[in-house]
Amino acid sequence: MASSRTPTHMAREIAEIPAVVARVLADGGPGLEAAARAIAGRRPRFVLVAARGTSDHAGLYARYLLETTIGIPVGLAAASVTTIYGARLRWDDVLVLAVSQSGAGPDVAAVVAAAREAGAPTLAVTNDPGSLLAAAAEIVLPLRAGEERAVAATKTYVASLAVVAVLAARLAEAGLNDAPRPSWAPALEALPEALEASLVASGAWLRGPGEACVAAFARAHEALVVSRGHNFATALEIALKLKETSRIFADGYSSADLLHGPVAVAGPEVPTLAFRPDGAPGSAVDEALAVAGRSGAAPWTIGGREIAGRERSLVVAPGLPEPLTPLAYVLPGFLLAEAIARARGRDPDAPPGLSKITRTR
Amino acid sequence: MASSRTPTHMAREIAEIPAVVARVLADGGPGLEAAARAIAGRRPRFVLVAARGTSDHAGLYARYLLETTIGIPVGLAAASVTTIYGARLRWDDVLVLAVSQSGAGPDVAAVVAAAREAGAPTLAVTNDPGSLLAAAAEIVLPLRAGEERAVAATKTYVASLAVVAVLAARLAEAGLNDAPRPSWAPALEALPEALEASLVASGAWLRGPGEACVAAFARAHEALVVSRGHNFATALEIALKLKETSRIFADGYSSADLLHGPVAVAGPEVPTLAFRPDGAPGSAVDEALAVAGRSGAAPWTIGGREIAGRERSLVVAPGLPEPLTPLAYVLPGFLLAEAIARARGRDPDAPPGLSKITRTR
Repeated sequence: MASSRTPTHMAREIAEIPAVVARVLADGGPGLEAAARAIAGRRPRFVLVAARGTSDHAGLYARYLLETTIGIPVGLAAASVTTIYGARLRWDDVLVLAVSQSGAGPDVAAVVAAAREAGAPTLAVTNDPGSLLAAAAEIVLPLRAGEERAVAATKTYVASLAVVAVLAARLAEAGLNDAPRPSWAPALEALPEALEASLVASGAWLRGPGEACVAAFARAHEALVVSRGHNFATALEIALKLKETSRIFADGYSSADLLHGPVAVAGPEVPTLAFRPDGAPGSAVDEALAVAGRSGAAPWTIGGREIAGRERSLVVAPGLPEPLTPLAYVLPGFLLAEAIARARGRDPDAPPGLSKITRTR
Repeated sequence: MASSRTPTHMAREIAEIPAVVARVLADGGPGLEAAARAIAGRRPRFVLVAARGTSDHAGLYARYLLETTIGIPVGLAAASVTTIYGARLRWDDVLVLAVSQSGAGPDVAAVVAAAREAGAPTLAVTNDPGSLLAAAAEIVLPLRAGEERAVAATKTYVASLAVVAVLAARLAEAGLNDAPRPSWAPALEALPEALEASLVASGAWLRGPGEACVAAFARAHEALVVSRGHNFATALEIALKLKETSRIFADGYSSADLLHGPVAVAGPEVPTLAFRPDGAPGSAVDEALAVAGRSGAAPWTIGGREIAGRERSLVVAPGLPEPLTPLAYVLPGFLLAEAIARARGRDPDAPPGLSKITRTR
């Protein structure tokens, strides 16, 4: 399975992630703090997130984390309302948060431009400060991830999550909606180390018991990926990576959404991967796995301390507060997707039919 | 394919849809108008939609239609923020719209209860006015669909769309956000007739050229369903029906989301179904179909006048304004799903592992 040839771009870029996140925290820190103060001063009452593809999953993380941390309602923008229907939304009191690795998508930039024109504060999280999106937004939060060469985005995804997490902590500290300082904020500093440890543990697992996981997915046509809460984004992101790099029909679900119908497709021939944090979201994931198990699904589980000793499981970043686990759990997911693609004889860096920049309207 | 045995509950319930929608318009009219006036008087600035499964797709339709009609931002609520994390959201100036056929889900009811306790106006769209959800909400909008016996919801789905459409029109007429009366509002009256015609055209097509469509999906393990804008909900809904009733791994996408990665799984062995309205959303769908076509996908298309004469196409409800087409386009989708399930030797009324009421938290 694990060949000794030159590593793929995808593998190298996954390995860079702890350093990229360290850069977001150090070099990006002052900018994020200033942005948070400026935003908090405008007292937004709602947040709309605009993004596509992998960045949409970073947006989904923002959607959960801003609600659980700041307590103001967050929605995911439907770009077509602006770009296809030309509707004019009431943007006052709305903060628009756009996420795009390339910043090149006309639809996301159009939503930001419409909101900014109406006077709403607009934030662009992007790896290209010279992009269309960066020009459209009032405040640019650079990802500082360096060039990403694999078509499947990995380091820019985790960099986006890191920017979102720091922003949420700083918005609370700046007093937005009188939110208290989140209990997980002090753990931000330890993130690079936790991510490095997550990579080491994941790599060791992939060379050991995880080989069977790679083999199961490599044989599959279809797969399910499940989580809940902050890690719902992780489930969607790894399902998309399996589609893109391995051409596996993989679907990501929250445990609740899985039970409302899609669990009908579970079965012994459909490998199932769960991201299962400790605590209440983890219990909800277990309930869904139990229902899928009645159809013969035997899940692989990545998560916190509570799954230690389970069959087919990997514990990563056991000390990390749950709201930050999406940054750590996605790493074994990425490594799995990369290894599965190679096991299927595919080049994870250049999936047929996809390109690094997708422009939709 | 089309057997002469007793029709399934699903087939009978699809046939009832025009009468159900007529009942929403006539018997439900006064209640919807009063609800709209009450809501408009509270001047909500933002809408959060709470729903699961098929009802979540009705919520997605509401999400687009309320933004294009009223112009206030709409988001889809993440129940876990309330039920798993216990976060307290700032609910003032928010309208909560909950949709649930059974009204029995604790998670949706919990979101409504939290919002109502904070003083926000709350609306419940449900087929059971005696349900947990109906008790939690300030205003109940009954679906008047009668008992639904098939596990796969069809008539309650279209009834939900009808309630949403009437509500959006009446909210505009009540002056919410100074929205103009929508140009499509006069077409509401003609809906039952348009839906009846859609059923007749779809039935004739299924007994003719559509037989090949049923056969293609009946052979498939995986499928793609695509649309854009108001009919994004239609794509998700029919993909879910194919999963539930036929155990096909079917994924629904907006044309833009499909291009941001998932198009990698398109191919000649993956039947693709597009809901393609006339005008700008239809052009966007065509762009995505062209990209999928490069991988050998040969799509089936259901839509408006502009697709007349295309190979593998069905024109339905050609006179209906685009914002109302989701009610008509979903009918051939439902009939297809029902026929495909039977062609696969499955009982569409009782998919293994699913029950009519799903309770998640």
